[in-house]
Amino acid sequence: MTKVALASLNAADEAGFMAALGEVYEHAPWVAQAACRQRPFGTLAALHAAMMAAVRAAPADQQLALIKGHPDLAGKAARAGAMTIDSTAEQASAGLDHLSEAEFARFHRLNSAYREKFGMPFIICVRRHSKDSILAQFERRLQNSMAAETETALGEIFHIAALRLDQRLEAADRLEVHGRLSTHVLDTHGGRPAAGVTIELLELSATGEQRMIARATTNRDGRTDAPLIGGRPLPIGRYELRFHVADYFAGLGTRQGDPPFLDVVPVRFAVAEPEGHYHVPLLVTPWSYATYRGS
Amino acid sequence: MTKVALASLNAADEAGFMAALGEVYEHAPWVAQAACRQRPFGTLAALHAAMMAAVRAAPADQQLALIKGHPDLAGKAARAGAMTIDSTAEQASAGLDHLSEAEFARFHRLNSAYREKFGMPFIICVRRHSKDSILAQFERRLQNSMAAETETALGEIFHIAALRLDQRLEAADRLEVHGRLSTHVLDTHGGRPAAGVTIELLELSATGEQRMIARATTNRDGRTDAPLIGGRPLPIGRYELRFHVADYFAGLGTRQGDPPFLDVVPVRFAVAEPEGHYHVPLLVTPWSYATYRGS
Amino acid sequence: MTKVALASLNAADEAGFMAALGEVYEHAPWVAQAACRQRPFGTLAALHAAMMAAVRAAPADQQLALIKGHPDLAGKAARAGAMTIDSTAEQASAGLDHLSEAEFARFHRLNSAYREKFGMPFIICVRRHSKDSILAQFERRLQNSMAAETETALGEIFHIAALRLDQRLEAADRLEVHGRLSTHVLDTHGGRPAAGVTIELLELSATGEQRMIARATTNRDGRTDAPLIGGRPLPIGRYELRFHVADYFAGLGTRQGDPPFLDVVPVRFAVAEPEGHYHVPLLVTPWSYATYRGS
Amino acid sequence: MTKVALASLNAADEAGFMAALGEVYEHAPWVAQAACRQRPFGTLAALHAAMMAAVRAAPADQQLALIKGHPDLAGKAARAGAMTIDSTAEQASAGLDHLSEAEFARFHRLNSAYREKFGMPFIICVRRHSKDSILAQFERRLQNSMAAETETALGEIFHIAALRLDQRLEAADRLEVHGRLSTHVLDTHGGRPAAGVTIELLELSATGEQRMIARATTNRDGRTDAPLIGGRPLPIGRYELRFHVADYFAGLGTRQGDPPFLDVVPVRFAVAEPEGHYHVPLLVTPWSYATYRGS
Repeated sequence: MTKVALASLNAADEAGFMAALGEVYEHAPWVAQAACRQRPFGTLAALHAAMMAAVRAAPADQQLALIKGHPDLAGKAARAGAMTIDSTAEQASAGLDHLSEAEFARFHRLNSAYREKFGMPFIICVRRHSKDSILAQFERRLQNSMAAETETALGEIFHIAALRLDQRLEAADRLEVHGRLSTHVLDTHGGRPAAGVTIELLELSATGEQRMIARATTNRDGRTDAPLIGGRPLPIGRYELRFHVADYFAGLGTRQGDPPFLDVVPVRFAVAEPEGHYHVPLLVTPWSYATYRGS
Repeated sequence: MTKVALASLNAADEAGFMAALGEVYEHAPWVAQAACRQRPFGTLAALHAAMMAAVRAAPADQQLALIKGHPDLAGKAARAGAMTIDSTAEQASAGLDHLSEAEFARFHRLNSAYREKFGMPFIICVRRHSKDSILAQFERRLQNSMAAETETALGEIFHIAALRLDQRLEAADRLEVHGRLSTHVLDTHGGRPAAGVTIELLELSATGEQRMIARATTNRDGRTDAPLIGGRPLPIGRYELRFHVADYFAGLGTRQGDPPFLDVVPVRFAVAEPEGHYHVPLLVTPWSYATYRGS
Repeated sequence: MTKVALASLNAADEAGFMAALGEVYEHAPWVAQAACRQRPFGTLAALHAAMMAAVRAAPADQQLALIKGHPDLAGKAARAGAMTIDSTAEQASAGLDHLSEAEFARFHRLNSAYREKFGMPFIICVRRHSKDSILAQFERRLQNSMAAETETALGEIFHIAALRLDQRLEAADRLEVHGRLSTHVLDTHGGRPAAGVTIELLELSATGEQRMIARATTNRDGRTDAPLIGGRPLPIGRYELRFHVADYFAGLGTRQGDPPFLDVVPVRFAVAEPEGHYHVPLLVTPWSYATYRGS
Repeated sequence: MTKVALASLNAADEAGFMAALGEVYEHAPWVAQAACRQRPFGTLAALHAAMMAAVRAAPADQQLALIKGHPDLAGKAARAGAMTIDSTAEQASAGLDHLSEAEFARFHRLNSAYREKFGMPFIICVRRHSKDSILAQFERRLQNSMAAETETALGEIFHIAALRLDQRLEAADRLEVHGRLSTHVLDTHGGRPAAGVTIELLELSATGEQRMIARATTNRDGRTDAPLIGGRPLPIGRYELRFHVADYFAGLGTRQGDPPFLDVVPVRFAVAEPEGHYHVPLLVTPWSYATYRGS
């Protein structure tokens, strides 16, 4: 998606503005229309705030209509290709577009239970979650009261809108919607960054499924050239980093056991803050290692 | 097997001595007979040395006959129940008694190739190896010369004999045939041993199979009441320790992420020295951990 | 001091009992006399409890007399050689027998202030403290109320009595009056215990003074043959362990910087629990180390 | 010293060029003159190489004269204020301008021994060394042959010249003459950067002297706003970092011992590569810490 400059939007006519931002709030162009009348905006943050304020200022039934305008998660609309382009891409980001029959059935059950209790679809900012985390939230939020759940749904809609604005617009400021997952490997046997170490990142799921989501080799500074995840929220979920350390030490001719005491070192951890910075390094010798949540 | 005191054997008649030790060397009672004539023995080590010396002193064709008296690994004799009691138990210890068809076929292929090249069965002290390690040794030793391989086979027979002596006899000394795998968990968040941590030990195989071989809970000193493996050689192979740390910290009411940054911490390592002491501890906070081969 | 068996004391006449234990409570033989009448004691703990109970049962003025029977810390009695043998040895254990003039003056000031406020000598179980810690307690306890301070003084007298009993008597049980300070060095560069490492233990003081109190070399298991401090309480105070790691790695021919990145590694820590076990190990490569309060 | 642009020097007349660079080689303007004729230079590195080549191309006696043109280290010229401005500042950087009488005498002895053996002054690039390291080099180089020592002296002169060029000139490139010493503190108890930790850096000397050379407080990212040493070579020598961790944890209200197990954590290390990057972080809880040479 080519980004539009905020300045251009400030100067555009209403049709231009609505073409760019009319779908930031799902099936609710009135939110963008309200913001359109308050131009110009100096920052993305100001525009985002104005749109949120418009939602907050709307009567309760209009807010509820906004909520009800969203599709079910992994629902029939998804299967039928009947969702907005944004929703389609968002649901795909957590793998909701290729569920097993069992998973589809589970989502169907949860959607039905949720609709029955609250009379609206379950809304969650999918890009901030793994499939496991979505299911966990689903179960947890089914326990909420109607009031709490309406508030939670609006909060999720604001998260979704912030990410849609971030994808569409360019400005001097950035909305704080991105997290970062990075690593580095320090060879404390040789007292130097470990270069040339193969690293894999997998997303783990409660069902035992493991999905490879990044693969990199450390550079001369023991780091990867790019973050393992960056430029987007970190999906709440569980991950495993795999560091191929026996190959690294073998390449240096370092004495190891036969077989080596350490080979592929797995580090399992969970992400709980989608906009956080998770730096998960490895300090390693052929006989020891340490890891931690760093910065 | 009830152990016999070395002193009793020193005092026994030849029939008694042979009843106890005649099968220490597979289908080769002459080794025990040679030792019988050199009694008394002050230590197990002296008895073991005398038996090895008898083998070394024998002519080459008798040594070869000794080697040839051993059954194939995971071979037809095993399936047919035609092995000695010792061999049966030994092969079971590495899971050779319940191979898949594919594994059985692979052993069959290796046995055939080995017999074709060397004209004798492949001998390995099974208790010192995992199935993976046996297969790796098989492939590696197929590259040996006949002379090197005869020497290797005798070395393995001596390992087997030492373990059989250790199982049958009691004396003031012990043969150094046992390894030890232990762990402890230190809570460096609270500055104390971590009590009540669930720990699992799995044996890993190259095929991805994982076999649970021990499960324990740490005591007040952060240790397990008994070694995870002890009283036997440590099978050469790859292992995974799993430390359930999120449950531990949750039990203390310690602040963790949601989900916790660390949950079940996996530590993968290999054993290369069956008679060694592997102490693999965990120093852990909710946000960091370290492990090493300790002592 | 040759230890007497508890059983002998149970069988002794009163004179014998009093000869052994009459001075356990300073200038207060009535405490031992009370215990004498309750014989026999099955354990040291029971004897200790009986003596404490006798003190607790005494009228307030007798308790106060017991307190007042103690000498000043580092006072004129010490200089004049007028203290009991026990008190003399105890005060020497914290170096109170060779104070500088400035220190002597400081103790004199504190003693005077304390006597003026409370009308009794300042009592502390010296063997559980370093000089620094005694001074810190002195300042802190000067803030107490009379009631709190009387209670604190009795508590200290009980600590003193427990240690005097421990020194005089042998029984099946032991009073828990000893702490332990130990260490070990693990070479995580080579994956083995670090043998032959020189270790020094110094007591630090707030004035910058450093007193060497132990020196040892690690054995094959990377440990010292005996605890660095054992068989007595650990004096509350600050300490420095010095590990001579560059010499160790140089002895192995390990590549280090020139000069080595690490040479003598200092680890500073405080003891707060005199009866605790402080295990302060070092995990070290030529380029990294870790230490912790272990167990 | 205001820096001159390399481009200006390329365009200057010879007098201007010589005014800027005539003293880069001590009392040897012929080196700059040779370079002057080869202008223009695209980079500082090319200029530096041209000047070194001019020295290498000179006859041996002219090289020796260049060497002899340097003042003694901590010699009479220093005391008499008879050195060039560059030499004065350089010698001051290692504290050679305020030696004790004993140190002055030691330098005097070494200078005499060196002059007697080699007939020239001892030359060393002082900015790359601590006083201890200068003395160590002095002793070591006294063992050299005349040929080796002449070569060593020229190498040091090139180091000195590179630093003088770096101070005088601005260009697109930089000579690699700077090192960097940095740290950061990670609170592995709380799983976050440790903000507000006071850090001191001291230079240690073999005589026990300790000189404070930097003091900083960690920022929100657990780092110091500027490197502890930067923009210059790191003097080869021994250092101590002091991390005030008890104050940090007390500020957070974290449970610690009384007194705290860890208070001011000292980390001692040596710098061996003046142009290297030494990152020496601390990972710390109230009960454990780790440090390493990082990157």
